[in-house]
Amino acid sequence: MKLIIAIVQNKDASKLQAAFVKNNIPETKLSTTGGFLRAGNTTYMIGIKDERVKEVLDIIKNISRTREQYMTPPVNLDGGISDASYPVKVQVGGATVMVLPMDNFYQF
Amino acid sequence: MKLIIAIVQNKDASKLQAAFVKNNIPETKLSTTGGFLRAGNTTYMIGIKDERVKEVLDIIKNISRTREQYMTPPVNLDGGISDASYPVKVQVGGATVMVLPMDNFYQF
Amino acid sequence: MKLIIAIVQNKDASKLQAAFVKNNIPETKLSTTGGFLRAGNTTYMIGIKDERVKEVLDIIKNISRTREQYMTPPVNLDGGISDASYPVKVQVGGATVMVLPMDNFYQF
Ligand code: NI
Ligand code: NI
Ligand code: NI
Repeated sequence: MKLIIAIVQNKDASKLQAAFVKNNIPETKLSTTGGFLRAGNTTYMIGIKDERVKEVLDIIKNISRTREQYMTPPVNLDGGISDASYPVKVQVGGATVMVLPMDNFYQF
Repeated sequence: MKLIIAIVQNKDASKLQAAFVKNNIPETKLSTTGGFLRAGNTTYMIGIKDERVKEVLDIIKNISRTREQYMTPPVNLDGGISDASYPVKVQVGGATVMVLPMDNFYQF
Repeated sequence: MKLIIAIVQNKDASKLQAAFVKNNIPETKLSTTGGFLRAGNTTYMIGIKDERVKEVLDIIKNISRTREQYMTPPVNLDGGISDASYPVKVQVGGATVMVLPMDNFYQF
């Protein structure tokens, strides 16, 4: 067994959690704040068999990795012509994942 | 030293915490939500000497394990005769416990 | 890589967090309650290279260790002469730190 600790952006958390449920990956969500990533992250603890670690990592990577998105900034309200009304590339997502050895796992 | 991470139902948390205090088991309670068990769980982190791991596991098992309880459902208010007014068996409790190796433990 | 879990008093948390930021130590703050120390603690999770563990421990120790402070108790409001208006020594701070082995560390 391994303990996987995954810290992801809040914006990716609900999609990630749905994927955990769909793939029958038992997770516990910790209340966390700031730090590793920009403000607003969620931490998952997952106790999992060694042979399923790669599957969990792939899910986290697919959903939560750092990627670029085009975002249209708010229109300049003073009526001036501004470059800011064109979509700009922003970086979103990102995940920090730690895999820890586990001595024993029990379900009582 | 080992790190014991125990995820239990909220309904068992106060009795479990009282047992930790009584047995001088130093624990930290994490704010958690959903996942391993039905909604409403509590996660404890316990840093403990190897020779006390069994003692801690026994306490968690005794207090938090899955068991059956008889529960009387709410009476049917429309006055009809209903099976639902008899006690029914429900499953409560349950604990997921992970024991992790620890390299070092400090108290400053 | 190691996972350092540090539980400190709330009163030391903001100074400690500033030191983590200044020294480029990536940390995640967990919402925690009671247990290891008197009520009101904060738990940090830090994933860090083996060669920086001592640096992190030194920072935690310097800022959060148990120490004595002189505190002037509130003046006795009934106007009587009381020893309590002199500063008294109180113990503050304290940190519990666990260092766990890590198999793998990923940033996606
Ligand atoms: Ni294993
Ligand atoms: Ni040990
Ligand atoms: Ni290492």
